[in-house]
Amino acid sequence: MSRVIVGMSVSLDGIAGGADEADWWPVHEKVLGWVFDLRSWRAAQGMEGGRDDADSELWAESYGRIGAQVMGRTMFDFGVEHWGENPPFHAPVFIVTHREQERVVKEGGTSYTFVTDGLESAVKQAVEAAQGRDVLIAGGVSVAQQAIAAGLVDELDLHVAPVLIGRGLRLLENLGGEFIPLESTRVAGSSGVTHLRYSVVR
Amino acid sequence: MSRVIVGMSVSLDGIAGGADEADWWPVHEKVLGWVFDLRSWRAAQGMEGGRDDADSELWAESYGRIGAQVMGRTMFDFGVEHWGENPPFHAPVFIVTHREQERVVKEGGTSYTFVTDGLESAVKQAVEAAQGRDVLIAGGVSVAQQAIAAGLVDELDLHVAPVLIGRGLRLLENLGGEFIPLESTRVAGSSGVTHLRYSVVR
Repeated sequence: MSRVIVGMSVSLDGIAGGADEADWWPVHEKVLGWVFDLRSWRAAQGMEGGRDDADSELWAESYGRIGAQVMGRTMFDFGVEHWGENPPFHAPVFIVTHREQERVVKEGGTSYTFVTDGLESAVKQAVEAAQGRDVLIAGGVSVAQQAIAAGLVDELDLHVAPVLIGRGLRLLENLGGEFIPLESTRVAGSSGVTHLRYSVVR
Repeated sequence: MSRVIVGMSVSLDGIAGGADEADWWPVHEKVLGWVFDLRSWRAAQGMEGGRDDADSELWAESYGRIGAQVMGRTMFDFGVEHWGENPPFHAPVFIVTHREQERVVKEGGTSYTFVTDGLESAVKQAVEAAQGRDVLIAGGVSVAQQAIAAGLVDELDLHVAPVLIGRGLRLLENLGGEFIPLESTRVAGSSGVTHLRYSVVR
């Protein structure tokens, strides 16, 4: 059965995004920088080379199990031009938005479906499209928070960068105000990043 | 040379304390519960029994290197009665406070020294008292934040409990607004807690 996963890179103080582009751009490399030189990540972007190490294997394992993705409109608008004609998702992507728009099919297995009836509907459509593989809620921060608060998330797959950012959007807040018990299912790390995976206990 | 360490238990969302006692009491067991059954922790409290496992060894290693502690007045007032005549610190403790008070010597190596000229002075006195061993900034949250923001801290030694608390005081905020680069020096975990140790990079 598909599991719904919030998979994101965060700083040790939990920052996963900026208040806006100008806020995020100077710091995104500190939080996400660990992926840019991985062979597996580069291959997904259509690039050659990169480090073929434990982090690269872990990235490949984390993203290899994903059959569909859900993202917010802000993240989509931020990234769509950069992602180009052969986007790095290689899977159906469901975008939560208020604006109706025709489905867009790109190269390499990526499609963009615009969902106007809410996050829960987007997750449900993604689970169907994933055909038993897992569903990644890739961001932004607000969509991930809403999904956790709504009880839609089975797993947190966090990649913790060794830095305190001190400003921006914190992933694990605005979660609805109830305790959410977790179970640690993986702890792994290199000098550049620490990987923490948790299942949500229901 | 002594290292100055912020050593605290936090939830995965970074909560290490409550807004007040009524806020903290119902949740403290979720964040700190991993220590209460450890043989090493129990021995420090003068109690017998407990689990003699990897978490217990790690607690003993983390606290065995501590030669003096610094804490805030709120934490002191919260705990002093409970800690009793033979407190669990077994080392000099320096309390940052506005109220002058005579030094108090307890059994088992613990003393309480009340420092009225600020946190930096308390840390300096603790480093002298530690005689080459390390200095623990044990809390509360506000004192730990101030110490990090002031550049007084060499190491973060965090014990991450598998729970999202969703309210209370977050350890890693109000840190002065500058990026603080870290180096991961230890990653270890059991099902009950994940231990993350970082050096502050200067």
